[in-house]
Amino acid sequence: MPTLVLIRHGQSAWNLENRFTGWWDVNLTPQGEAEAKAAGELLAERGLDFDICFTSLQTRAIKTLNIALEAMGRLWLPVEKHWRLNERHYGGLTGLDKAETAAKHSAEQVHIWRRSFDIPPPAMEPGGDFDLTNDRRYAGIEIPSHESLKDTIARVLPYWEERIIPELKEGRRVLVSAHGNSLRALVKHLNRITDADISGLEIPTGQPIVFELDDSLDAKDFYYLKDR
Amino acid sequence: MPTLVLIRHGQSAWNLENRFTGWWDVNLTPQGEAEAKAAGELLAERGLDFDICFTSLQTRAIKTLNIALEAMGRLWLPVEKHWRLNERHYGGLTGLDKAETAAKHSAEQVHIWRRSFDIPPPAMEPGGDFDLTNDRRYAGIEIPSHESLKDTIARVLPYWEERIIPELKEGRRVLVSAHGNSLRALVKHLNRITDADISGLEIPTGQPIVFELDDSLDAKDFYYLKDR
Repeated sequence: MPTLVLIRHGQSAWNLENRFTGWWDVNLTPQGEAEAKAAGELLAERGLDFDICFTSLQTRAIKTLNIALEAMGRLWLPVEKHWRLNERHYGGLTGLDKAETAAKHSAEQVHIWRRSFDIPPPAMEPGGDFDLTNDRRYAGIEIPSHESLKDTIARVLPYWEERIIPELKEGRRVLVSAHGNSLRALVKHLNRITDADISGLEIPTGQPIVFELDDSLDAKDFYYLKDR
Repeated sequence: MPTLVLIRHGQSAWNLENRFTGWWDVNLTPQGEAEAKAAGELLAERGLDFDICFTSLQTRAIKTLNIALEAMGRLWLPVEKHWRLNERHYGGLTGLDKAETAAKHSAEQVHIWRRSFDIPPPAMEPGGDFDLTNDRRYAGIEIPSHESLKDTIARVLPYWEERIIPELKEGRRVLVSAHGNSLRALVKHLNRITDADISGLEIPTGQPIVFELDDSLDAKDFYYLKDR
């Protein structure tokens, strides 16, 4: 049976401060590092092992993976990093905390942006503090100026199909360390969750999610490893 | 001008204890971690940057790279890991400290094994404490039972030619994090150091070595970054 485990990065500085992060490259907190270590220890303890790992181009996901792999004695596994696994781009909300955003746009509007499937937040203004246009890690790609969850899913799935599915089909055990919304994209796809329901799925930080896939790579079930 | 920087991993637990390590997977000491961080900070401060990184399958080299990349804000760079960049395999000496080895084999003999170009140490006995035959990280490769420096060079250079040279030729800036002897292989090759002289070259831990290459990838010079 193909093995697929997803893990959302441990707590980041802006998770803690309740600020919209998106593509901004925020580091883990000490608690986030501890979550990543505990995740690796739990995976090892339960006998889960891997052949290849995937992550985003964002420090919080890469570090979560590195820390978990070290706890598993698996730092030597191949790791592929790609922008398509990045967090949803929060556009003009990037850097704002909840109170600032509500004051600027109304709490109701913020709720819509956070929870709707296809309404993107306002676009990021070019040249602002969080503009990544000149970050060479994204050279050659069209950096979005904002993304709805639907937009995020649309750019995650080609990577799933082109890079991750072929590995699973070869029988390789796959670990993906990514973000709340890039993982929602995968969970929605694998479990056929409706557009209306997916934004209600809260993925906790640092908790390995195990998928039981059949040979056609349909998910029969998924569960949080800590619950088994 | 193509950029190539080599770095030997920071101090490991067995560097500190003066034990032969070879392919055994020993972790960095806190000092080794600090060396790796300082190396990354120095690289960033001097404006050296990279497009792709290479390392071995051994924790001490991978962690050195990860820590240095984090200090540079470059954790997102692609990293390729390969056994051909591993340390020289110390065979039956693996795990012994200098005193134990001298008592068992004579100090003179130990000096020959450490400093000769083509005399390998005694072979590792199968089934011993340090036998890696069943370590799946090396599945599919013929793990050496011991290596001379000459043997080490012979398995490092094909990787240099097949994977690293093509990146340099494409104009990519390359960072290699590896080991005393796998780096000696590269330094010897690039600087045409003689068989007699190469084992006398001591590469310090955690110090970035910068190569100035011409367009045919011959080394015009190399220096320790700290000295400039």
